[in-house]
Amino acid sequence: MGTPVQKPDTDNGNEICDDQRPIALGESFFGNIFPGGHTGSKIVKFATMSKFTIAVHGGAGTISKKSMTPEKEAVYLKALNEAIDAGFRILEKKGDALEAVKAAVIELENNNLFNAGKGSVFTNTGTHEMDASIMYGKDLSAGAVAAVKNIRNPIELAYSVMKKSEHVFLIGTGAEEFAKQNGIAFEADEYFYSEFRYKQWQQVKGSNETALDHNITLDEKKFGTVGAVACDANGNLAAATSTGGMTNKQYGRVGDSPIIGIGTYANNKTCAISCTGHGEPFIKAVAAYDVSCLMEYKGLSLEEAMNIAVMDKLMKIHGEGGMIGVDANGNASLIFNCEGMYRGFCLSDGRREAAIFK
Amino acid sequence: MGTPVQKPDTDNGNEICDDQRPIALGESFFGNIFPGGHTGSKIVKFATMSKFTIAVHGGAGTISKKSMTPEKEAVYLKALNEAIDAGFRILEKKGDALEAVKAAVIELENNNLFNAGKGSVFTNTGTHEMDASIMYGKDLSAGAVAAVKNIRNPIELAYSVMKKSEHVFLIGTGAEEFAKQNGIAFEADEYFYSEFRYKQWQQVKGSNETALDHNITLDEKKFGTVGAVACDANGNLAAATSTGGMTNKQYGRVGDSPIIGIGTYANNKTCAISCTGHGEPFIKAVAAYDVSCLMEYKGLSLEEAMNIAVMDKLMKIHGEGGMIGVDANGNASLIFNCEGMYRGFCLSDGRREAAIFK
Repeated sequence: MGTPVQKPDTDNGNEICDDQRPIALGESFFGNIFPGGHTGSKIVKFATMSKFTIAVHGGAGTISKKSMTPEKEAVYLKALNEAIDAGFRILEKKGDALEAVKAAVIELENNNLFNAGKGSVFTNTGTHEMDASIMYGKDLSAGAVAAVKNIRNPIELAYSVMKKSEHVFLIGTGAEEFAKQNGIAFEADEYFYSEFRYKQWQQVKGSNETALDHNITLDEKKFGTVGAVACDANGNLAAATSTGGMTNKQYGRVGDSPIIGIGTYANNKTCAISCTGHGEPFIKAVAAYDVSCLMEYKGLSLEEAMNIAVMDKLMKIHGEGGMIGVDANGNASLIFNCEGMYRGFCLSDGRREAAIFK
Repeated sequence: MGTPVQKPDTDNGNEICDDQRPIALGESFFGNIFPGGHTGSKIVKFATMSKFTIAVHGGAGTISKKSMTPEKEAVYLKALNEAIDAGFRILEKKGDALEAVKAAVIELENNNLFNAGKGSVFTNTGTHEMDASIMYGKDLSAGAVAAVKNIRNPIELAYSVMKKSEHVFLIGTGAEEFAKQNGIAFEADEYFYSEFRYKQWQQVKGSNETALDHNITLDEKKFGTVGAVACDANGNLAAATSTGGMTNKQYGRVGDSPIIGIGTYANNKTCAISCTGHGEPFIKAVAAYDVSCLMEYKGLSLEEAMNIAVMDKLMKIHGEGGMIGVDANGNASLIFNCEGMYRGFCLSDGRREAAIFK
């Protein structure tokens, strides 16, 4: 568990708004309500409109603490911090939330620690098929791709679909054709190769088994996805999610990550959300948009809505995983119902944290 | 416009519940609030739990009345009635809503009047790529496929994904592989050929233009999708949607139809919804689940929620089209914000209607 973020009385001389939310700033919520697992949440409140916030995740699941050495942990935390920095630098220059989440996710896609981009797992035919989506809360514009191969940064392609096409969702070779026509960088298969991922695939190859993710050791279970959410100085929100899917996956399976409203959602009126977890229950729960509706239609705060979505509704349908969210006041929440989630955040007052376990 | 359904004082000897909903039974709502188009809705209330209801659609858009001869209209209405019958026969025998919506959609997929299954439009490479999804409100189980070729009934494949796989969403050749392993019927390209569709494609082939649909004449604009929603005698809800996509579509574009929560959603607590319209805004609006959330979180009735979704939220983002819905009391609503929607419904008291225009 990371250091709890304590509520300051004032922040840079600004009064912190008392927004009547029932969960105290910096309060953490832990339990053991997921069968065989644990729960945890990180709530960061920061209610001054001119401020900006970024949060990132690198997947969630039953990450075994005993197999995590201090050296390995340091490497993961460094990677999370680099992603935070990539997004935060843009926000500091009064850049847009959309550009910040893209930059953060590109950083994570370029690091083979995470199951996205370069670090994507092997499918049952030994290929790497990737999914990504991005959404901008200012105008609800969105872009998404699924089952794309050899794309260096699938989130760049999703962004390009949003900006340069009349469509939202492109898949497979058609999406790759669009990528070629729009100057998106391709990489040869070797770029996506790593011995660890290859061994991971060999363990389940030839069986009908799939592994949902990338693990630190080969016998772990973890949901491999990366994502980022941001609120910029203008109160614009954005969310982005990217994944390499499931090791040994077959039948062109697509999870929640590339689906607008499910793995990714952003709306300036409510929140920006990026999910990571067992894709199928997240689809059935329409997880990301559910948080937005709980805020818009029931008047809940970001963290109340996320707690209901992750700790109640998803758990009832065995939806193991988590999500990160920001609202237009710069509040951030990082919640998961399993043992750990690679995650981090940075606020414009300098408070930041990267953590893996509860 | 179809015949308004008037509220009976009693129904088969049962008291009709007064459920305090502000819109009167059988009231129709028309306007001209969509730029260049029209709006319309059909609301059918039927509030006795032991009753059952089915509704179907065959697409929506700017269907030109002047190009619709009485003979053509009769052919469309016959096809809609056949789909209603296929589903209703199952409900009459105390069958399940899930089986009823599948049977109704199969009927529509087998009729080349509609842009789904046999009647699917041509892509830019002269192929037929189809999408479908199905969801069961009792347990939120769901199945969906996108960009599948040569599948006789994509809704059968979506149903099979739901019943026989651990996944929800399979796409492309992977989904076809799953189909082969699970005894799903394939058809040769010729099965999907029709001169009308071919001419439709030739009109835009070689350009970057896509036509969103199947039209009665080649210069019309219509959203080609089919769908069904049902409430069975046990109060179980289901929804199913199927489409052949856009004429001359490229880049592996996927619309709202195969997306759970967007083109299709079912939850016994709230409603079952099947959408038809311009896919991209429907995705941004997370259209089907939005109706469910408006009911669950704001306490709105089915028709209030659908009116907000179709007439307000979708229209604000140029989301032309419509949707059909049922709730667990057997109420049905068929709402569209454009000139027409191929549609029909049948209630267990014998009231039924099929219509195209407002």
